[in-house]
Amino acid sequence: MASIEKPEARAYPQASGYEHRPVAMLGDPTPLILDCGTTLGPFRTAYQTYGSLNRDKSNAILACHALSGDQYLAGTNPVTGRAGWWDDLVGPGRLLDTDRYFVICPNVLGGCMGTLGPADIDPATGKSYALNFPVITIADMVRAQVLLLDHLGIDQVFCVLGGSMGGMQVLEWAAKFPERVFSAVPIAAAAHHTAQNIAFHEVGRQAIMADRDWCGGDYAAHDKHPRHGLAVARMAAHITYLSEAAFHRKFGRMLQDSNGVTYGFEAEFQVESYLRHQGSAFVDRFDANSYLYITRAMDYFDLAADYEGSLVAAFAGTPVRFCLISFTSDWLFPTPESRAIVHALNSNAANVSFVEIDTDTGHDSFLLDEPEFRAILAGFLNGAAKHRGLI
Amino acid sequence: MASIEKPEARAYPQASGYEHRPVAMLGDPTPLILDCGTTLGPFRTAYQTYGSLNRDKSNAILACHALSGDQYLAGTNPVTGRAGWWDDLVGPGRLLDTDRYFVICPNVLGGCMGTLGPADIDPATGKSYALNFPVITIADMVRAQVLLLDHLGIDQVFCVLGGSMGGMQVLEWAAKFPERVFSAVPIAAAAHHTAQNIAFHEVGRQAIMADRDWCGGDYAAHDKHPRHGLAVARMAAHITYLSEAAFHRKFGRMLQDSNGVTYGFEAEFQVESYLRHQGSAFVDRFDANSYLYITRAMDYFDLAADYEGSLVAAFAGTPVRFCLISFTSDWLFPTPESRAIVHALNSNAANVSFVEIDTDTGHDSFLLDEPEFRAILAGFLNGAAKHRGLI
Repeated sequence: MASIEKPEARAYPQASGYEHRPVAMLGDPTPLILDCGTTLGPFRTAYQTYGSLNRDKSNAILACHALSGDQYLAGTNPVTGRAGWWDDLVGPGRLLDTDRYFVICPNVLGGCMGTLGPADIDPATGKSYALNFPVITIADMVRAQVLLLDHLGIDQVFCVLGGSMGGMQVLEWAAKFPERVFSAVPIAAAAHHTAQNIAFHEVGRQAIMADRDWCGGDYAAHDKHPRHGLAVARMAAHITYLSEAAFHRKFGRMLQDSNGVTYGFEAEFQVESYLRHQGSAFVDRFDANSYLYITRAMDYFDLAADYEGSLVAAFAGTPVRFCLISFTSDWLFPTPESRAIVHALNSNAANVSFVEIDTDTGHDSFLLDEPEFRAILAGFLNGAAKHRGLI
Repeated sequence: MASIEKPEARAYPQASGYEHRPVAMLGDPTPLILDCGTTLGPFRTAYQTYGSLNRDKSNAILACHALSGDQYLAGTNPVTGRAGWWDDLVGPGRLLDTDRYFVICPNVLGGCMGTLGPADIDPATGKSYALNFPVITIADMVRAQVLLLDHLGIDQVFCVLGGSMGGMQVLEWAAKFPERVFSAVPIAAAAHHTAQNIAFHEVGRQAIMADRDWCGGDYAAHDKHPRHGLAVARMAAHITYLSEAAFHRKFGRMLQDSNGVTYGFEAEFQVESYLRHQGSAFVDRFDANSYLYITRAMDYFDLAADYEGSLVAAFAGTPVRFCLISFTSDWLFPTPESRAIVHALNSNAANVSFVEIDTDTGHDSFLLDEPEFRAILAGFLNGAAKHRGLI
């Protein structure tokens, strides 16, 4: 895979053409070897940082984003114009205290916010890679992040944390690079993707591929974007991020039109209008092929498979301090998935704390103002910071 | 709405053009008044019967099919070439004993297997009704069934039973026409559609409407069928019919190719291949606009709303004998939905039995060989048959 020097205009809206800064050129001179065998480099990784790296480079926190997230953890996301996904957690005196920590958030490999992904121009053809982009894995995403830390001169991060797919990256980090991680917080995570989760992802992919504007992946060459298919994919996925109780509490059977039912196919119920909005807002900021690649990476994730099926072996002798957090109403990455990881860590006499937060807000709870979740996270970070000599 | 005298060729595959028999012309001379205000009649209802009506017409069982079901309860479905959805339950000496009962199963109003639906030709235009078909409700489906029973000369059915949307029809029957129902068995049912269920239906509808071959509903006029969109809708829905445990047990993370992962977007995991098959098989037998109309009917279902929000009032003084059945792993129509109905019936001192079957096979359990479910159903029918003097 040849070098990609700078961002090029892309076919998808809003995110297209925006020059994300900073970026690091990684995989040069030694290229990155992907799980699929393709070598990659030099390649671009876009990231954001918050706070300052201390003198002994011991105060870095690596935040790993979820499937539909990006590097804009805090402040205003320049593509959406909205606050970052953990905006209220990051800043002086806040949970991710920028007076104390140096917070790094990279866009994942395969993404569409500045890091090399399928929407980028393949210099060999002058067109978007599209489906010629190599299939990537969670391990590949983490390998790219390792190169970013090398680039930033950071040997060990104080903490790596993230929810959902971010939590998968955290687990991969802790298992494969334990010496580079002081503490790890996998939130609403799992050590493998379940059959039902693969099924939901496959529905999303089929929705995208069914859109004629997908053009076999080559929509950029035709100046199109499979908006309808991507919106349907997002709608289906969004249901899995909430819970039945949250849907009931937020929407119930409330109608859009207070005058009663209209007997038609417009958005009759408020929940329909909400979902449609989730779909249409997403297509303005996300690339359809990136969605295919990133969901595929999640499907492939099976940490134990790299250790002959043993999750215990994955964490053998780990020096990492863990805090696992799950949510009672999360049916996408339910608590038993976290518990299985805790059992494997306990079998290694690892330093692990585990809390299941009682909430009806579902998988996306880690993105919401859940006071108990935040209190747990703050307590763990403070304790770990004392041990690390950061306080 | 004008008369439709006989089935016409239709644009969707396999089911298209097949002349379903028998059919009854209903709503003549008095037309059916739909919830949306449209009057309908004469209109065609296709149905199947099994066994013989006894002399005093007291042995009729009305089986109500689910969203994707049809009137071919037993024997070979002439469109799919496969066994009917309860084939092994119907026959001499079987649970629905054709030596004892006269089993009737009509295709629902709005369906695509012979009963008047959106794919039918509108004699006013000579084209398919498509979205000019009136939006129908579960109550409308039941009203059409009442007319069918009138047509067959049956004042009271011994039992009305059905699962999922069939169970909604059973509840509607028992509430609105208690004098015409001796016993009722709503299986895996609910008295209203939840916000999450509406959300899943909306994803399916948007997938259909996003398919360019949908043509704003007028695909028949263009000799097309939105196969891709309908397949995606079916795939998303099919996930909700199973359970996470069933997906895990049946598929886990098993690969299609035993040689290992291929790093691509073909069906890599067995669960993907299974889902794709569910999608493609469905489009050969189902009309996309029927899918829109029938899902909409389920969304609108809210039995208590017809009684100022009181489910207790819906069953005031009911003489009907009820048996409710739910399944532990059904997350689409979970047990609390059945329990709410049981509470309303108990408040009326109704004759009601309720069993939650412990199984991991999810919502579709009522279509599967679940011995405990079948034993419960057999026991209830036998007891009711004794009371009705059929044994």
